[in-house]
Amino acid sequence: MDHIPILKLRDFLLVTIQVDMHDRLAMQLQDDLTARISETGARGVLMDISSLDIVDSFIGRMIANIAAMARVLDAETVVVGMQPAVAITLVELGLTLPGVRTALNVDKGMALLESATREIGDSPAADAGHTE
Amino acid sequence: MDHIPILKLRDFLLVTIQVDMHDRLAMQLQDDLTARISETGARGVLMDISSLDIVDSFIGRMIANIAAMARVLDAETVVVGMQPAVAITLVELGLTLPGVRTALNVDKGMALLESATREIGDSPAADAGHTE
Repeated sequence: MDHIPILKLRDFLLVTIQVDMHDRLAMQLQDDLTARISETGARGVLMDISSLDIVDSFIGRMIANIAAMARVLDAETVVVGMQPAVAITLVELGLTLPGVRTALNVDKGMALLESATREIGDSPAADAGHTE
Repeated sequence: MDHIPILKLRDFLLVTIQVDMHDRLAMQLQDDLTARISETGARGVLMDISSLDIVDSFIGRMIANIAAMARVLDAETVVVGMQPAVAITLVELGLTLPGVRTALNVDKGMALLESATREIGDSPAADAGHTE
């Protein structure tokens, strides 16, 4: 496994993280994802982490980096499917994923992205902000 | 990794196969997927195999089994993202995935499922059939 597949769903890209991330795989994902955003003009990235039992500071930083990179390429990032135990650990570790939106599942994440990209389309001056 | 995540996208379920399948994981996927179909009433299953470089007879049989199980639970299966080299190998091995529809990518697979489920909805007597 040297690539995490990136699926295109209409205007959005979906990444399902299933395997243990290590440095090289995380770098590869950043490269692939930024390339796909610029190639497809995707407006949003959905990152599914439902199969991760543990999110440590490395993964947390990777998610925040990917979201920041996507943002400068004009795409919003939504993390979906976080396990309740992961949410507890994140807060206990003080990792609050600043600037990353979250949603319970892919359907809700897509709805969030749709409304977020519509808002931005309606009022170009609007700040992208983060989770309401 | 003892579970392959199954994502719900509107009326469909999406499974992205990223890791090497072995017996136990394949059985687990069959259990999880049939349970999710019956729980959500999903009308279709999209199976993304874009990260598989090799599809051997074991994976081929697993895909055919899952499609058959989904069909008796009233859900169509579409395999998406097959690499060209995999298509060549499959045909050379004589594995033609009978009864499994295929599409180039997730977007096309969803469009295929949407039209397939609509057709079935329109004419209840219609045979589900396979790839046109």
